[in-house]
Amino acid sequence: MIYFDNSATTKPYPEVLEVFQKASGRYFANPSSPHALGAEAERLMIQTRKKIAEQMEVKEREIIFTSGGTEGNNLAIKGIALQHQTRGRHIITSSVEHPSVIEAFKGLEQLGFEVTYVEVDRHGYVDPVEIEKEIRKDTILISIMSVNNELGTIQPIKEIADITSRFPKAYFHVDHVQGQGKTPLSLKKAKVDLFTVSGHKIHGFKGTGVLFVREGIKLFPLFHGGGHEMNLRSGTENLPGMIAFSKALQLINIKQNEEVNELRNLRNYLFTKLQQLDGVVINSPEDGAPHILNLSVPGIKPEVMVHALAEDEIYISTKSACSSKHPDRSAVLQACGVSEEVMVSALRISLSYQNNRSEADAFIKSFKRTVAYLKGKGDKS
Amino acid sequence: MIYFDNSATTKPYPEVLEVFQKASGRYFANPSSPHALGAEAERLMIQTRKKIAEQMEVKEREIIFTSGGTEGNNLAIKGIALQHQTRGRHIITSSVEHPSVIEAFKGLEQLGFEVTYVEVDRHGYVDPVEIEKEIRKDTILISIMSVNNELGTIQPIKEIADITSRFPKAYFHVDHVQGQGKTPLSLKKAKVDLFTVSGHKIHGFKGTGVLFVREGIKLFPLFHGGGHEMNLRSGTENLPGMIAFSKALQLINIKQNEEVNELRNLRNYLFTKLQQLDGVVINSPEDGAPHILNLSVPGIKPEVMVHALAEDEIYISTKSACSSKHPDRSAVLQACGVSEEVMVSALRISLSYQNNRSEADAFIKSFKRTVAYLKGKGDKS
Repeated sequence: MIYFDNSATTKPYPEVLEVFQKASGRYFANPSSPHALGAEAERLMIQTRKKIAEQMEVKEREIIFTSGGTEGNNLAIKGIALQHQTRGRHIITSSVEHPSVIEAFKGLEQLGFEVTYVEVDRHGYVDPVEIEKEIRKDTILISIMSVNNELGTIQPIKEIADITSRFPKAYFHVDHVQGQGKTPLSLKKAKVDLFTVSGHKIHGFKGTGVLFVREGIKLFPLFHGGGHEMNLRSGTENLPGMIAFSKALQLINIKQNEEVNELRNLRNYLFTKLQQLDGVVINSPEDGAPHILNLSVPGIKPEVMVHALAEDEIYISTKSACSSKHPDRSAVLQACGVSEEVMVSALRISLSYQNNRSEADAFIKSFKRTVAYLKGKGDKS
Repeated sequence: MIYFDNSATTKPYPEVLEVFQKASGRYFANPSSPHALGAEAERLMIQTRKKIAEQMEVKEREIIFTSGGTEGNNLAIKGIALQHQTRGRHIITSSVEHPSVIEAFKGLEQLGFEVTYVEVDRHGYVDPVEIEKEIRKDTILISIMSVNNELGTIQPIKEIADITSRFPKAYFHVDHVQGQGKTPLSLKKAKVDLFTVSGHKIHGFKGTGVLFVREGIKLFPLFHGGGHEMNLRSGTENLPGMIAFSKALQLINIKQNEEVNELRNLRNYLFTKLQQLDGVVINSPEDGAPHILNLSVPGIKPEVMVHALAEDEIYISTKSACSSKHPDRSAVLQACGVSEEVMVSALRISLSYQNNRSEADAFIKSFKRTVAYLKGKGDKS
């Protein structure tokens, strides 16, 4: 099996499963319970939060545990908007954000907020100057992803943060779900206020994640209740899930430090090889994230391509899993202004540190044969 | 170890851990991915939803997977309020609800909603007639829990539902987190519109749960995004978590069918024995839920009592874990109108189907000795 759909989700590391299993059996108590078992769970939770804060180079009280990327993005965006609406009701994002950002903004439009969607270039890049132009006196939030989930485009987050930080009334949120463990982004250096990470994109579990909220920032909670997570996200703490997330984060960061060049080489190898093929259009920018490669084969329906490759046990995606229930038209590519035929024939290859050159070669072989077959120029088998 | 804090959280059943582990390794793909692995995960998700719907006697599309009770309650309450506010902005709850309900209502007050908190009697009972009196033309939501988490009081949900169903503009939400698997509530018979269940209260995992939303009811999603869960709760589906929840629900329902009388007898045994002790005030109603028993020992600080019992490896709570970070004053008992000394000395025993008579006897023995010691009338050892 060749699994090239790691931006949709990753397979949990065995070590993650192991720590989860141990914690679920042994540290099952409610960390808020007043007895010794609760206190033991609470101590472990504090340690876990500390480890994550160290990995992310932030303060412990800036780590808010969530159920994943969609919650993190929604909590950041709606939390700022609903809490600070008396200061202004204008919010800014880009036209290529993940559905959990775009749809959250649309939801806020229903509640009376005014949204500016900044446009992008052919490769999905946001121009920091465009952001600056759109910031108004009543702008309270700007949300831009670090790595585009369909194209792998790496946005100039530091430059945007330098601009937004000059407007103290406007908070800056970054959806880092696709970037974590692949494209480093220092929260020490970039003036980011809120920052979303997901567990299942880094070989952790679905249902886990973290939102960084810079100290002192108030959010309207999506979950009111017992006051957990610095009063920003109530609900019995999922300690085994937190421990699993911490383990995944630690492991992916090690991988990033040691193997990111290898990963980038693998992606560039695929980029070069696929670019040479007739009838293939590469949609990702050359200097994109080291794990995502988007391409189109105009004239071939992407779902047909995906199913044909699956016969060789090769698994890739049409655009993003999060919007793949909708017709095969990529809103991201549409925003990039590509032609209709490119827009409706996009495929996404997304790698993990587990993938290797021989898998890439097997993929290219199968891909070439499949394209030829589907174009009626060859035999599939 | 005698674990009598099952209303705070329960230990996951080994079978739950087992199915989770298997699913995490084998069915890790994103159910929305277009390839064969995704399709396999999607099929399993559909089966899982079906099993849960059968257990709950509702339709498959009425099952919304959540991260737990706090999310379920917040999604139901804010989802109705924000979506239907053009019809009216008056909402009703009781003064003894769980913090995830009470605080969600307070949050909505900040957003301009008007809340009526109906009062309760000495044992925490809500009078359906009081609810009826408070319903107005602009009332859009009534939220009442089925089983009180501190006292075990079983509310007259069917009677309240009969009343609220006569007001088609007002939705009726029930927090069934403490009731599931202990006090049956038929969604076929009671005219309930929204219904919250949590995984970790039924020997499933933290971070899992279900919200029943009657077909056709629209909610403003807390999580906008890819349109998962009938467009009511976006985010990559946590398939292993869903499977774990389904297993826990199935097992607790079997327990309920076969062993609930035994559980009730155990609770009644403790009730009778403890009632006979000098200086003990039983706060729970006699006909309360079969697993919760609340009592006070006026003059003894509850946290001291909890720690003393923990020395014998007996684990009980002061009021609810969800509000136990706050000073030892129970808002629920306050609403019941008990005296100050009873209010600040409450203890909660909460049982599971794993507990037995010999544990109850050991508890009573330790409890008596501890009370005598703390009152200076005996020797602890």
